[in-house]
Amino acid sequence: MSKTTAGPEIERMIKLLSRLPGLGPRSARKAALSLLKRREDLLMPLADALSVAVDRITHCPECGNIDTVSPCSLCQDEGRDRSVIVVVEEVGDLWALERAGAINGTYHVLGGHLSPLDGIGPDNLNIPRLYERAASGDVREVILALNATVEGQSTMHYLKDVLAPTGVAVSEIQKGVPIGGELDYLDDGTLAAAIKSRRRI
Amino acid sequence: MSKTTAGPEIERMIKLLSRLPGLGPRSARKAALSLLKRREDLLMPLADALSVAVDRITHCPECGNIDTVSPCSLCQDEGRDRSVIVVVEEVGDLWALERAGAINGTYHVLGGHLSPLDGIGPDNLNIPRLYERAASGDVREVILALNATVEGQSTMHYLKDVLAPTGVAVSEIQKGVPIGGELDYLDDGTLAAAIKSRRRI
Repeated sequence: MSKTTAGPEIERMIKLLSRLPGLGPRSARKAALSLLKRREDLLMPLADALSVAVDRITHCPECGNIDTVSPCSLCQDEGRDRSVIVVVEEVGDLWALERAGAINGTYHVLGGHLSPLDGIGPDNLNIPRLYERAASGDVREVILALNATVEGQSTMHYLKDVLAPTGVAVSEIQKGVPIGGELDYLDDGTLAAAIKSRRRI
Repeated sequence: MSKTTAGPEIERMIKLLSRLPGLGPRSARKAALSLLKRREDLLMPLADALSVAVDRITHCPECGNIDTVSPCSLCQDEGRDRSVIVVVEEVGDLWALERAGAINGTYHVLGGHLSPLDGIGPDNLNIPRLYERAASGDVREVILALNATVEGQSTMHYLKDVLAPTGVAVSEIQKGVPIGGELDYLDDGTLAAAIKSRRRI
């Protein structure tokens, strides 16, 4: 974009917007225009929301979730079953499970998965705190809800060994055919997993 | 999304992001996560850029462009040919022409097009100022670079009549096959226009 098209502040805004996932240069321009044209009802509230986030977002010292309160809203929620910890890789996975209303336990966000090639080992993940929580005596079950990827699965096996001394039950989420999935369109790995973990009806 | 997933501030941020063009609920969540995870290098600069925009964006009194300076950067640019005014519907059109480096004149942003069904008449567009500029004696040509839509074209014909008393040359941008366009994939209207405005070679 030509330097003379708009002031440097607008150019900077477009550049930053284009770094959001899902927005390329073209859609960032459209987003910026939309913000500039809707100053009162979109630009101002969003500027305010981001400023609040800058000031207040924090990682929960308990579970690693991101929130504006500490401990996070979920850890503070009295209605949750504290005997169950659901371990996820990222905050986005936690959000997805919550949207699904999948379980009413507490969570633990690792902050990624083991990836030796990228230099990410156990020390780079939120594992020591998980061990402490699991060993506290209040926990009955740890559910490993990690991605069904090579990295997710090797992280899962590592955590199973780490958690063994605590004596708590460790489980993994089931793999199989997604609800609504058609066999003809599924990959071989999913089909093999679904057959292998078949159950009597 | 469950109310308890994250604090109300994060929910609000996601909701506002989802109102940007190109972002739906799912991509707004991804964008929010990305912002929360990259506090220093993305969230803070963007919050700052939006706050600056809130404080400083303004419509250029000369041409209707949106900028953080007034008159806008383009109207202040000494290197531009002030005898040519390129009339566009929206600021995004101005940006597109500038990116293309199509012409080094000045611009005039109407703020939309005539649309009687939506209650948008001449009084709702930035037309009186266009007449003043065209009639000032400094202007040689007004180029109507409006969309090749029904509304854009009827606005164009209206403006042609409005500008007639000023005596300046009024032109419209050419319609035809887009560069790289394959005839087989083009609509009938474009093909008809391209044939109609054919030129000798």
